[in-house]
Amino acid sequence: MAATTTTTTSFLYPIPSSSSSSSLSTPSRTTISSPFFKRTSSPKPLTSINKTTTNSRRVVIRSAVAIEKETPESERPDTFLREVDDPSSSAASPHSSNVRAKFEKMIREAQDSVCAAVEAADGGATFKEDVWSRPGGGGGISRVLQDGNVWEKAGVNVSVVYGVMPPEAYRAAKGDNSTTTKPGPVPFFAAGISSVLHPKNPFAPTLHFNYRYFETDAPKDAPGAPRSWWFGGGTDLTPAYVFEEDVKHFHSVQKNTCDKFDPSFYPKFKKWCDDYFVIKHRNERRGLGGIFFDDLNDYDQEMLLSFATECANSVIPAYIPIIEKRKDTPFTEQNKAWQQLRRGRYVEFNLVYDRGTTFGLKTGGRIESILVSLPLTARWEYDHKPEEGSEEWKLLDACINPKDWI
Amino acid sequence: MAATTTTTTSFLYPIPSSSSSSSLSTPSRTTISSPFFKRTSSPKPLTSINKTTTNSRRVVIRSAVAIEKETPESERPDTFLREVDDPSSSAASPHSSNVRAKFEKMIREAQDSVCAAVEAADGGATFKEDVWSRPGGGGGISRVLQDGNVWEKAGVNVSVVYGVMPPEAYRAAKGDNSTTTKPGPVPFFAAGISSVLHPKNPFAPTLHFNYRYFETDAPKDAPGAPRSWWFGGGTDLTPAYVFEEDVKHFHSVQKNTCDKFDPSFYPKFKKWCDDYFVIKHRNERRGLGGIFFDDLNDYDQEMLLSFATECANSVIPAYIPIIEKRKDTPFTEQNKAWQQLRRGRYVEFNLVYDRGTTFGLKTGGRIESILVSLPLTARWEYDHKPEEGSEEWKLLDACINPKDWI
Repeated sequence: MAATTTTTTSFLYPIPSSSSSSSLSTPSRTTISSPFFKRTSSPKPLTSINKTTTNSRRVVIRSAVAIEKETPESERPDTFLREVDDPSSSAASPHSSNVRAKFEKMIREAQDSVCAAVEAADGGATFKEDVWSRPGGGGGISRVLQDGNVWEKAGVNVSVVYGVMPPEAYRAAKGDNSTTTKPGPVPFFAAGISSVLHPKNPFAPTLHFNYRYFETDAPKDAPGAPRSWWFGGGTDLTPAYVFEEDVKHFHSVQKNTCDKFDPSFYPKFKKWCDDYFVIKHRNERRGLGGIFFDDLNDYDQEMLLSFATECANSVIPAYIPIIEKRKDTPFTEQNKAWQQLRRGRYVEFNLVYDRGTTFGLKTGGRIESILVSLPLTARWEYDHKPEEGSEEWKLLDACINPKDWI
Repeated sequence: MAATTTTTTSFLYPIPSSSSSSSLSTPSRTTISSPFFKRTSSPKPLTSINKTTTNSRRVVIRSAVAIEKETPESERPDTFLREVDDPSSSAASPHSSNVRAKFEKMIREAQDSVCAAVEAADGGATFKEDVWSRPGGGGGISRVLQDGNVWEKAGVNVSVVYGVMPPEAYRAAKGDNSTTTKPGPVPFFAAGISSVLHPKNPFAPTLHFNYRYFETDAPKDAPGAPRSWWFGGGTDLTPAYVFEEDVKHFHSVQKNTCDKFDPSFYPKFKKWCDDYFVIKHRNERRGLGGIFFDDLNDYDQEMLLSFATECANSVIPAYIPIIEKRKDTPFTEQNKAWQQLRRGRYVEFNLVYDRGTTFGLKTGGRIESILVSLPLTARWEYDHKPEEGSEEWKLLDACINPKDWI
């Protein structure tokens, strides 16, 4: 196990090439092709850095989208923001959005508190931390706990990315299929927290959460490109067995959080979650849902920042009480085998459908960070069908026919 | 476990909608969109059958590509060919290619002999068989052995498909990216054998082989579409540990088989195999290769039929002696964990890159048949790196830097 590994984001689905010029500008001599339809080269970093000015370096992207190489850091910096975006810096731009700084602060606090709560509940293992940065700004902190008392694998990552996305990626990120004028490569800022927690006990559920903030800027050579911002994210629960009180509790916390902001949020984001985490080839969901949203920008920006903050802060009260209740439940080999089959489904969803994972894999993101979401172990049995009416069947039924839990 | 499950092919990468009209003609009122870029509906069969003539039924494909529903059969029929293709039938067409009948006979004999050899070497478990057919012709036999003495999961499937592929799938199948005139939906015939054998002992390697034969016909409404035939397939070895004598033996059998036909085959198909089974996001191969070829039609058709036959017949002498030698080798927990990590790589390749698997999943093929290739169990550890010079490292090195074994 290397102590100084580097890490890229795994929470964003558009994580295309990053620009290391000193502001959100398009790199010169850029040739970016769509990463969604074909892959033209090996996953090695494709960028090469040429010093063209005294104070800034330019990234020349020679081929399809790729991610700039990360540098391992021995210490956590106060911020991963570029100076122009850092309100505490004398170089701060008056035009920079303070939301960037506020969002970074929020996700780093959330990472600390979630990791502290997980370590406390585990009572054994601690998180291993990898800190990394990129030459042109941005970076992240990855934390992984493996083989604990309670969790077999738990990852909690934060990252900040300054990048340039091809127009196709931009449309995919925004979920916008309209064929407006091709805007050319779009510089973007993104920050997010992403986490998957896989417990050992088959009665203790897996949790996933992810909150992210995006901004795009008009590129210098394509003034037609839109400037926009949006929030995305969600928290969802994936048990191997249904304890109705657990699922009710989990969804109630999500609903209470949503209701503080807009009564339409919970029903809308609950359905969005049910619709997103579908293993399409099985016509079943990977779990029992929660909330999921994306491209959220039709509310006040500060309000949505508060909403994302509240969502991230709800992870511990939504999840840890369930873990405390189930972590020591006695179980049989059959229970464990069923959990392993459900873990297989988790792998299928993440490798085949999850946009963050598939995009990250195909554009050369750091594999270990992207795949930390996979369980330690998984299982595939030929044509396994739980007996109708069994506890295993009840879980499967709830994954096929999503329920209103509250 | 259901005794009467139905099964679709899992060996073909273009397995689009099948036509049940009585010859290779295009279904009327067909709207087929490309399955490669988006999925527009659930994986349920999307075909509905309308009786429009007395003797034949027409399939109306309402949405994106889908596969016609299979019917379970209680007995193996003598042939899955349509009468027009069956030389023993009085309805046989003088224009039908005898290669179809010869290839079906070959793969069914190969299935019998491989299953018999696997059962004999296992000395415990036997194959469970599912037979199925499709209303318009075609069908298959799936055999799975699970939890044997030697193998944890072994699948050997044959199938015959009468289908219609969209022009995009045709180009993908042929590996042809040229932008010739859009030919419209292309009726095709395909037959193949596909197998993955995962042993329990971490020193005994996984084997995969697959041989397939394709024919396309000019659709009635698109006379510009080409008529063609081609062979594809290969046999490759995926061990968790390198025993040089085993790999040499395996590759020697492949080479001897190839050399009987053309001295250029082995070097060409060995490289093709090394280039195909790449887990691109890790820049490593899933195993130690073998042979792989596709779109093979630039030799005499009967000669290539003999070649495919010889390849299929080489599976037992290439593989079973290695199994006999390694199946009872004592191993540690660490050996088993490493095998499980390599199984995780197998899952990554099959779910993310394998064209047959990804196409099958996205077009509604029978999941259990497609995913029988996945191992019973797999493992993902965060940032696992074998110690340099260790036996695990040697395997990884050989997967990263493919070697000339003979």
